[in-house]
Amino acid sequence: MTHFADRIAEAVERKRSQVVVGLDPVLDQLPVELRGETVLAREHAAAACARFCCGIIDAVAPYAVAVKPQLAFFEALGADGMRALEDVCEYARAAEMLVIADAKRGDIGSTARAYAAAYVEPRGDAPPLADAVTVNPYLGRDALEPFLAACRRDGAGLFCLVKTSNAGGADVQDVRLSDGTLLWQHVAGLVGEWGEDLLGEGGLSAVGAVVGATFPREVAEARRLLPQAVLLLPGVGAQGGKPSDLAPAFTSGPASALVSASRSIIYASRNVADDWRGAAGGAAARLAHDVWAASAW
Amino acid sequence: MTHFADRIAEAVERKRSQVVVGLDPVLDQLPVELRGETVLAREHAAAACARFCCGIIDAVAPYAVAVKPQLAFFEALGADGMRALEDVCEYARAAEMLVIADAKRGDIGSTARAYAAAYVEPRGDAPPLADAVTVNPYLGRDALEPFLAACRRDGAGLFCLVKTSNAGGADVQDVRLSDGTLLWQHVAGLVGEWGEDLLGEGGLSAVGAVVGATFPREVAEARRLLPQAVLLLPGVGAQGGKPSDLAPAFTSGPASALVSASRSIIYASRNVADDWRGAAGGAAARLAHDVWAASAW
Repeated sequence: MTHFADRIAEAVERKRSQVVVGLDPVLDQLPVELRGETVLAREHAAAACARFCCGIIDAVAPYAVAVKPQLAFFEALGADGMRALEDVCEYARAAEMLVIADAKRGDIGSTARAYAAAYVEPRGDAPPLADAVTVNPYLGRDALEPFLAACRRDGAGLFCLVKTSNAGGADVQDVRLSDGTLLWQHVAGLVGEWGEDLLGEGGLSAVGAVVGATFPREVAEARRLLPQAVLLLPGVGAQGGKPSDLAPAFTSGPASALVSASRSIIYASRNVADDWRGAAGGAAARLAHDVWAASAW
Repeated sequence: MTHFADRIAEAVERKRSQVVVGLDPVLDQLPVELRGETVLAREHAAAACARFCCGIIDAVAPYAVAVKPQLAFFEALGADGMRALEDVCEYARAAEMLVIADAKRGDIGSTARAYAAAYVEPRGDAPPLADAVTVNPYLGRDALEPFLAACRRDGAGLFCLVKTSNAGGADVQDVRLSDGTLLWQHVAGLVGEWGEDLLGEGGLSAVGAVVGATFPREVAEARRLLPQAVLLLPGVGAQGGKPSDLAPAFTSGPASALVSASRSIIYASRNVADDWRGAAGGAAARLAHDVWAASAW
């Protein structure tokens, strides 16, 4: 299996795009043709969400390198939702898109091994559910060891939370340490260590970092602290981040950062007179164009 | 709905126990009568795990106040595993045990709302999947707001990671801050703030804290920092924590701490000549006795 960062680089080059489309399906926000007019049982709600996500995948595949299903929205539909997640991931893979499971998991020992098995390891004869997974660093390195092993062995990728896009993240991430740095900068240093022996042919690591596009200064600083990490930058669009502010993220190369947007793409038809698929494709194409321009500064 | 901490207090009083049994089902560790001799398809593996967990619930219900299904082990079995989780939670509720979903989730905005809906909010006409859920504090208060709302509105409980039981937790949690404290102590302070307006009739908060029983000194310190929190103490048994070291956790009352063990109870039959259910019941009864003795110092 090709190294994760090299798979990203290939996709970025081929599509001239660094866009990741977040899949956050919420039943009552789906087009009425999918959700109908009546209250749906969970099973049908999950099926409607899956159809929606597959339609979005068809629409954005030419313009986005990956989809990022946000697991919470599938878990909220219970077992039926998890079946929908499996279907959507398989559909994305068939459409030759990378899949980043936005799980933000973090746990210890045998539990961490089970999470790695759930999301980034081959499942018997079947391929892994996702190419990469987001993880939370609060439990330290040993909690991420099974994921690092999957990077090494199965070509998986990892995106570790470093500086999240929400204001409240400051409660913990912006605490000042005794050496004068902030906690998120310390975590960035750890992420660099965890990924330093997992470099692909292009020089980028399988261990990336999540940094909110809502904080452009911190994005630039994370780039400096983590020259070999792929940065995953959520928060563009509905949360207010701007592609033009993200140029410094790309100083390690065009595939050294991915820009993720969810609601502003998948629900784009709210703001334009177009079919929901056409609107999503259009929004993804525009974002891809803007990010590509920023990356080529 | 009765306040979560008051539900715990009632159960602790009734059963004279502060034990929580962790449900970490792993197929190849199940009794052979459940897993059979051949490799099982996922669907059958999930069903075997559910039967195992229900048998454990029958065995430990007299001696334990709650079960703590570890979601990773169910997620590793995909949608079938999540169906098994739903069945196990329902079975535990029917056996009048509290359910703590060990999810360690943490995410922002609409995603956090979806996680709260998945685990601690009523699901249409059905009750919440669990009474309480474990969460990760790295994303700060706004990421936990939907869970706090469920505490307020639906009588849910929350256990926030503070100082985890693994050695590697020190990478982040034991970092020293500019004011001389450690990060986990800062997080303990936040947990106290988040829970201060969510007190039950017994004076304990719906917002508890996870502190590893593997660090008895830190348990005592967490008790001092968080006099109104229910402490959830994992790490007894397989990880090496001892009930006799945990007495300081109970200075806020007999229901102010819960001691969680998983493998040392559910797989107890490995070490004794007894049926797996009998062995689990015996191990839970012994732990309940030892913890009760420690709590009554």
